Amino acid sequence: MPLEIPEVVIDRLPVYFRLLSGLQSRGVGVVSSQELGDALGVTPAQIRKDLSYFGRFGKQGRGYSVDRLAEELRLILGLDRRWKVVLVGVGRLGRAIASYRGFDPQGFDIVATYDVNPEAQSAGMDDLEVRDISRLEEDLAAQQIDIGIVAVPAGEAQAVIDRLIAGGVNSILNYAPIAAQVPPHVQVRQIDPVLALQGMTYHLRRRG
Amino acid sequence: MPLEIPEVVIDRLPVYFRLLSGLQSRGVGVVSSQELGDALGVTPAQIRKDLSYFGRFGKQGRGYSVDRLAEELRLILGLDRRWKVVLVGVGRLGRAIASYRGFDPQGFDIVATYDVNPEAQSAGMDDLEVRDISRLEEDLAAQQIDIGIVAVPAGEAQAVIDRLIAGGVNSILNYAPIAAQVPPHVQVRQIDPVLALQGMTYHLRRRG
Repeated sequence: MPLEIPEVVIDRLPVYFRLLSGLQSRGVGVVSSQELGDALGVTPAQIRKDLSYFGRFGKQGRGYSVDRLAEELRLILGLDRRWKVVLVGVGRLGRAIASYRGFDPQGFDIVATYDVNPEAQSAGMDDLEVRDISRLEEDLAAQQIDIGIVAVPAGEAQAVIDRLIAGGVNSILNYAPIAAQVPPHVQVRQIDPVLALQGMTYHLRRRG
Repeated sequence: MPLEIPEVVIDRLPVYFRLLSGLQSRGVGVVSSQELGDALGVTPAQIRKDLSYFGRFGKQGRGYSVDRLAEELRLILGLDRRWKVVLVGVGRLGRAIASYRGFDPQGFDIVATYDVNPEAQSAGMDDLEVRDISRLEEDLAAQQIDIGIVAVPAGEAQAVIDRLIAGGVNSILNYAPIAAQVPPHVQVRQIDPVLALQGMTYHLRRRG
């Protein structure tokens, strides 16, 4: 396996995995790169090229075994185990994140949530204890956390990210609209609807 | 200007624009590709290459004029005008989206929100009228809408997307965890924290 797989390819693998999981649940046994490409809006050649980074999954003209490809992707993506996640910021957005039912089935456990105003934010949240952000360092020292989700306002986000990193959290999912500054050993993904919308207006303007 | 700019480059332009807006507000007049690269975690060569698709913004060794580059990106990205957006799905996530203050300053007006259960979802939402989803077609016929935001459960998302497209909405921001099927003239962006997390676990697994 080559060491350097382009990040754009890695970002597509979860999409492939989701699609294959759907095919599995519908009892589909074999799928072609054409069918995968049609479902994802990319060319079959792109599918074959992406998957070729990880070895030979399919035979020419015979398609991919859905079970085998899904299982390989599960291992490649590290989805064969569970991951510990903390959420910082339990405002309206943080509550929506905390209550999202999509994390648990995919192996992501939100083990703690934090806010500067824990009592106010706990109100009305079933099954969710919001801890005071001042306890973050102590908690991170007591338990290895894999991923930190940051859902605080923009002005507070970099400081929260710094504290998570100082506590040994090396993967950050950032919902705050800032370009987070992190050391090279830390990975950040940005969830940002405005950036997504602005990528679309580029095209809208051209058609207009 | 070349017609085919890679989508990955277009996706980075809003990030550049945000960074430049921040520099403008701090009164910075000139920025180098090295400084832009440092702030975004990419190489200066990448910055220069990305911006070269849109003409010559900087002079070798003299850096970019922040004002001029920001203004060019604003035009390129279509951020010099306002865009009409509808939001479908006003559950916990939809409420977080509807109340997000980041859309308006960037030119995105959420002109209407829809839900299958409008009365229940309106409760507690200030300044937000939730309309019955059955009125969607009629409303779309009466007013050109640029972008549809979809925040309904996965099982309902494709049908909602189909209805938006039938009503002339050709740009979809999809929060539902499905690979949306759309005709070629429609663009979709996915906001999906699970996919982002799974892109990070790939790297986490490799580090052991």
